[in-house]
Amino acid sequence: MTAARESAPIRAIDVIRKKRDGGELSRPEIEALVGGYTKGEIPDYQASAWLMATLLKGMTPSESAALTDTMLRSGEVLDFSDLPTRKIDKHSTGGVGDKTSLVLAPLAAAGGLTVPMISGRGLGHTGGTLDKLEAIPGFNVNLPVARFRKILETCGCSMIGQTAEIAPADRKLYALRDVTGTVESPYLICASIMSKKLAEGIDGLVLDVKTGSGAFMKNEKDAVYLAELMVETGERMGKKMAALITDMDQPLGRYVGNALEVVEVLAVLRGEGPEDLRDLCLELAAWMFLLGERVTSIQEGKTLSTRLIRSGEALDRFRQMVELQGGDARAIDDPKHLPRARHTLEVTSERAGYVGSIQCERAGTACVILGGGRERKEDSVDPAVGFVLHKKVGDRVSSGEPLCTVHFNVEALGTRAKTMLLESFEIKDAPPTQNRPLVHRVITKSGEKN
Amino acid sequence: MTAARESAPIRAIDVIRKKRDGGELSRPEIEALVGGYTKGEIPDYQASAWLMATLLKGMTPSESAALTDTMLRSGEVLDFSDLPTRKIDKHSTGGVGDKTSLVLAPLAAAGGLTVPMISGRGLGHTGGTLDKLEAIPGFNVNLPVARFRKILETCGCSMIGQTAEIAPADRKLYALRDVTGTVESPYLICASIMSKKLAEGIDGLVLDVKTGSGAFMKNEKDAVYLAELMVETGERMGKKMAALITDMDQPLGRYVGNALEVVEVLAVLRGEGPEDLRDLCLELAAWMFLLGERVTSIQEGKTLSTRLIRSGEALDRFRQMVELQGGDARAIDDPKHLPRARHTLEVTSERAGYVGSIQCERAGTACVILGGGRERKEDSVDPAVGFVLHKKVGDRVSSGEPLCTVHFNVEALGTRAKTMLLESFEIKDAPPTQNRPLVHRVITKSGEKN
Repeated sequence: MTAARESAPIRAIDVIRKKRDGGELSRPEIEALVGGYTKGEIPDYQASAWLMATLLKGMTPSESAALTDTMLRSGEVLDFSDLPTRKIDKHSTGGVGDKTSLVLAPLAAAGGLTVPMISGRGLGHTGGTLDKLEAIPGFNVNLPVARFRKILETCGCSMIGQTAEIAPADRKLYALRDVTGTVESPYLICASIMSKKLAEGIDGLVLDVKTGSGAFMKNEKDAVYLAELMVETGERMGKKMAALITDMDQPLGRYVGNALEVVEVLAVLRGEGPEDLRDLCLELAAWMFLLGERVTSIQEGKTLSTRLIRSGEALDRFRQMVELQGGDARAIDDPKHLPRARHTLEVTSERAGYVGSIQCERAGTACVILGGGRERKEDSVDPAVGFVLHKKVGDRVSSGEPLCTVHFNVEALGTRAKTMLLESFEIKDAPPTQNRPLVHRVITKSGEKN
Repeated sequence: MTAARESAPIRAIDVIRKKRDGGELSRPEIEALVGGYTKGEIPDYQASAWLMATLLKGMTPSESAALTDTMLRSGEVLDFSDLPTRKIDKHSTGGVGDKTSLVLAPLAAAGGLTVPMISGRGLGHTGGTLDKLEAIPGFNVNLPVARFRKILETCGCSMIGQTAEIAPADRKLYALRDVTGTVESPYLICASIMSKKLAEGIDGLVLDVKTGSGAFMKNEKDAVYLAELMVETGERMGKKMAALITDMDQPLGRYVGNALEVVEVLAVLRGEGPEDLRDLCLELAAWMFLLGERVTSIQEGKTLSTRLIRSGEALDRFRQMVELQGGDARAIDDPKHLPRARHTLEVTSERAGYVGSIQCERAGTACVILGGGRERKEDSVDPAVGFVLHKKVGDRVSSGEPLCTVHFNVEALGTRAKTMLLESFEIKDAPPTQNRPLVHRVITKSGEKN
């Protein structure tokens, strides 16, 4: 009986039961379930039972690696090994005002790396890189792989959306997770992110794992757990990995909304822009250069990044990419070529004091309500709307002073967003005694944390 | 936002998430999910995610009651309130050689109760009441409710299969549980059993919850947990409840297999048969009479039962039911009118000693292999096959002495069953020092256990 069972094909029901009972699945068992589901051989009700068991029982590192690998191999894996420079990408778990990718891709390319960045759209209270890029009139994120490669060869960076060929298992599983309450598993999140990123044919990956009120992982412990999981999974697959746990307890920078964020990206690429955004870009770029062996220390990486911005090389690279992807490059020099909302509205403080906190998820949701984000995947996005913060945590504010400006196109939505933004600001008598650091910690190599 | 959500319909995804996170679901939430699933409004992938979350996170007593009630109300609830006598049923969680229902229904009816028994078929290593009844040529278990009622009015007992109208939610959910690894949850088992039994329109229910190597619940702790859950659920719904935790560490009685078990049932109804089976029938019947207020003590109930057997009234009632359900009553007086296997085979002991244990699930599986049970729901059953035990736990055996006789129709299956049965007997040098009691304990009223 036992011998006959061992040689028989792996049954989905047995894989589900094993995970339900807390067992460790073998690679063939994971392949049978996830591969079978992708091919349509295993029904979604079995896949969803397995997803829930996985969410509640967890996975071992070797299961995580096997799942990532199975999802990665479900589709096309890009191969840029013929390109002479190191292929390094960066991925963020998402936040409000998080526009670093638009700075980092051209900056890293200007510094001699290849950045084959495949990004996503905004969902929920967080924004998405593709939506920001599409705020530039004409910018095309839907390129065939051959064109993607051509642009990478020409300017060292290209930013596109996921193609149907990349990790189809992830697309199918994610759609199921979304409707079965199984999104919030670090193991499934790790496999989803890593399978797509590793399909880019990269040598190394810098992860920006956000924590705080505007992040997916509200508390640092969860963020660290996910970061460690992704670093370990990537390293098991031979990639250079570093994860920065960074702050998302208030919006990053001052501009939130797709076209508004492009404006701020351009400021940073000119050596201007708000300090937090600039600092984080320099830090992340330095790690990209370190993993790509362009520098031997983070300090050296920051110096290189600062120089590439000061010389205009990073901005030039951005302009080149915009042109190659069909975007209107005039928008780079003159923001009037970017979409602009018809109306603005000031959100003013009702009392004097200090900004104690900005409830960041609520602020992000205000932007969604304006039309700048998506509540559902199929929603379209208004690139022009959003808000500009005048006060951030720790800033002094007098009564009646503007906290932020809402950019809107629909009166009723502007009013709603104003209320939400006002509610998201907590004004206190004294400034906060503790400043949250921008980078909470860095996780790189197995077990090494700084 | 919050107010709008509260008045909005309950979303399946929110119910799944709440259970996933260990929350207690409200009655409307359970109704939305289970009712919605039964009506086809909620897809099976959401139901299966909820089932797995429920299996892993459990349910509170009020959730169990709400689930049972929702499943009960998904279909027709029979109403026999116009019948003057108390409606009392008995349900067993299933075992090997467990044929007490066939004794109890006519016995309780002879004692002035009404027994509207809706039973199931065998699955896995355990037998099923319907399969045993159908071993009587012509016996029809598929009766419309009107005929079921008529027979109950005439002879006080009728035994049929589940109709399409009874608890359709259970049928749909059970089919899903079967393929998603979510059968083994006491909460789901409780709701499945109780919804079907309460749909019979009964006043009280005696549960026979089996424990041991041939039971679904191998260890007593699990059996007690399930029993307490069912007793509490039934009492919350206004039913008189008692659960007996009884032994299933070896087959009950000596005959296993559908027609063979009918032979043993007839022996008990004649005041003969093996002691363990007879004792358990008397005990269970006594509890039925106690819940049905025909007696005021278990002892009195046993005395009444013994008298009804001795007088032939119980056997007469069985004969009447068989006739009313189309069965060949000649089978009651002469076993040659029951199906008989073409061949028999002795399983003899390879050494002298004492029977230390009989691995009961293995013995039950031997009967399935012979064709007497089902590996899958759609399998048909050979009523004639099975085995007769000559030795039970504690019995002395000499080398070469028969342990049991296999009844078979297919040579190869007979040989396989012989090997399995031989393996299921453990022969030791000394008899077991401890006897497992037949009734481990009784659970009745909330918290009262004896």
